[in-house]
Amino acid sequence: MPEQHNDNLAQAQTITEEDIFTAHVGGKLSVELTDPLEDRRDLSIVYTPGVAQVSRAISEHPELAKTHTWAERLVAVVSDGTAVLGLGDIGASASLPVMEGKSALFKRFAGLNSIPIVLNTTDPDEVVETIVRIAPSFGAVNLEDISAPRCFEIERRLIDALSIPVMHDDQHGTAVVVLAALTNALKVVGKRIEDIKVVISGAGAAGIAVAEILLASGVHDLIVIDSKGALHTDRSDIQHMKKDMAGRSNPRGVSGGTAEALHGADVFIGVSSSKVPEEHIASMAEGSIVFALSNPDPEIAPDIALKHAAVVATGRSDFPNQINNVLAFPGIFRGALDAHARRITTGMKIAAAAAIAGLVEEPVADLIVPNPFAPGVAEAVARAVMEAAEK
Amino acid sequence: MPEQHNDNLAQAQTITEEDIFTAHVGGKLSVELTDPLEDRRDLSIVYTPGVAQVSRAISEHPELAKTHTWAERLVAVVSDGTAVLGLGDIGASASLPVMEGKSALFKRFAGLNSIPIVLNTTDPDEVVETIVRIAPSFGAVNLEDISAPRCFEIERRLIDALSIPVMHDDQHGTAVVVLAALTNALKVVGKRIEDIKVVISGAGAAGIAVAEILLASGVHDLIVIDSKGALHTDRSDIQHMKKDMAGRSNPRGVSGGTAEALHGADVFIGVSSSKVPEEHIASMAEGSIVFALSNPDPEIAPDIALKHAAVVATGRSDFPNQINNVLAFPGIFRGALDAHARRITTGMKIAAAAAIAGLVEEPVADLIVPNPFAPGVAEAVARAVMEAAEK
Repeated sequence: MPEQHNDNLAQAQTITEEDIFTAHVGGKLSVELTDPLEDRRDLSIVYTPGVAQVSRAISEHPELAKTHTWAERLVAVVSDGTAVLGLGDIGASASLPVMEGKSALFKRFAGLNSIPIVLNTTDPDEVVETIVRIAPSFGAVNLEDISAPRCFEIERRLIDALSIPVMHDDQHGTAVVVLAALTNALKVVGKRIEDIKVVISGAGAAGIAVAEILLASGVHDLIVIDSKGALHTDRSDIQHMKKDMAGRSNPRGVSGGTAEALHGADVFIGVSSSKVPEEHIASMAEGSIVFALSNPDPEIAPDIALKHAAVVATGRSDFPNQINNVLAFPGIFRGALDAHARRITTGMKIAAAAAIAGLVEEPVADLIVPNPFAPGVAEAVARAVMEAAEK
Repeated sequence: MPEQHNDNLAQAQTITEEDIFTAHVGGKLSVELTDPLEDRRDLSIVYTPGVAQVSRAISEHPELAKTHTWAERLVAVVSDGTAVLGLGDIGASASLPVMEGKSALFKRFAGLNSIPIVLNTTDPDEVVETIVRIAPSFGAVNLEDISAPRCFEIERRLIDALSIPVMHDDQHGTAVVVLAALTNALKVVGKRIEDIKVVISGAGAAGIAVAEILLASGVHDLIVIDSKGALHTDRSDIQHMKKDMAGRSNPRGVSGGTAEALHGADVFIGVSSSKVPEEHIASMAEGSIVFALSNPDPEIAPDIALKHAAVVATGRSDFPNQINNVLAFPGIFRGALDAHARRITTGMKIAAAAAIAGLVEEPVADLIVPNPFAPGVAEAVARAVMEAAEK
């Protein structure tokens, strides 16, 4: 396994700007026919007059749309371009390469058809309204790169308005993989999730969702830090999700930043672009766990963190323990669609995390998450999600 | 060639309901990757971190979206399900098999990627607004199966709002193929387009668009008939497109229905579902041309029409001379996209019709349009459209 990481590292380093731009010319997706269309007979089946029989049948028995169109298993990857990777609000067109990449991953890892839809509006009402209007075209909606706090409201309203699975991957895909990685990291250091002190740096889409899934998984002592410091109930400058989270976290009422919060903590999870000084990491408890997930520049360099922490993970492919959403979202959507689920519930997300963690038979410090290319990752996640959905 | 028609006839007749439904299970389209995605290196190129460079480049140089995403050559096939084939307003989901078929044809005949977008709104304002909001996802919009007169306003407003090609195929695809077929039929009967009397039965999307392209192509004497009779300027019950058309057609001021209008006429074009009695066809001029395009039941049975007319065409694949939009729309969109055109103009449509007509070297009564599977149809149309666009 260490050799594999070295291979990956070597591979990653050989990528040039030209490699990247060449691979994007003309885009990364194509739409193909599932069956040959070679003569008038085929034409009369897939188009007029034959198709009229299928359309008429669906109009009389709407449930036939599920079996006789592609929509039922088609994932829309939707973005308004407001929080694209670490680049911020760069707009719809500039977000498209990311959405195409996401659609490529849906196909490669879960066999799901998926199309990018990028919006030239950033008004939450209009985003919701637009997705609702085009929803009959799809079987599920993966929201992507939508800025916080707008993303919370947009996701909630879409879940309420639609009867198909809707998930903002920057929130929940990240949360699921973090929980999976933490599950295995805790095995490595021999601690129980109920006993640990967790500090999350970042109260955006990922930070709030990670906090939510950890609270739902048994973490009792959890502090979320935004750009002004730890969320706690005395702060008057926070609203909505942050205010709500302040009321359900930080039981010791810690105020201040990472200096105060990390002292004696077991787990640091960085999902902001704020740096963390080495001395704050050094002040953590024995056997500490550091997930420095900011991309491309982690909150603390992994080699520095490793001087103090027992387990270190990042979001990068050129270091061990890459916390990568691709481990989660293809299987989560596949499982939800296989189960004909109308919602992706917390139980389904926690089951997905357990499935991912379970794919690493013997977790060690530099192997707490599976390789995304290991066979069967999405299948295992989908199975776990489907079982959770059926409960 | 006659044998080929017989083959087609035989083929069409062997299609069972089971053939049609089986071919639609799971839908007719799939989304595929243009390049393999087999290791972490590929992942780092098509997704993070590599893709960030492409997104950043597009945000700085927006024109790079044209070359480095798939959107520039992606056609959205959009419907609100209000006028699906001859089935009427059957809704978004029931229209989806038709839109999938259309997307399949775009790929098969023009090599263009295309995705169906069906809307669960029928309000023209909302239809326009929704398409404008998702427009950065696409390079062109093919409107489909949207009822008249809503379709005229929706198309016009979208053309004004967007800088990408927008075309309602039920209008203009039909008009282009009718003009192509008429061009060759006139060669067969030895008449000039300037001299003919034309009667169009149907003042919906197709009827108005056929009238427009014929007027633009040199027809002087043209009568459009709606469900109440011939459009003329004395009628107080017509509005919008019909009123406008009344002012630009029917120079002899004919009132009444097909009985009055067809007497001595050279060309009948049926694009409604109204039947035409045999005696009205029998009253047409010597060497008459009958296009009975209603599907699946032509306005008059082709064998009956042939007793009186010199050239007969229908919309069906099991008779000679199928007037089928598939001859036009793939090449029109391909040509518009190849030319980076912002509009599909009347000149481009007329050029497309001439290209289609030109593919039949020696038009005869039962061969006035090419076989859609003849090699090079879309390419010839695209070339003609591109040349017209560049003028």
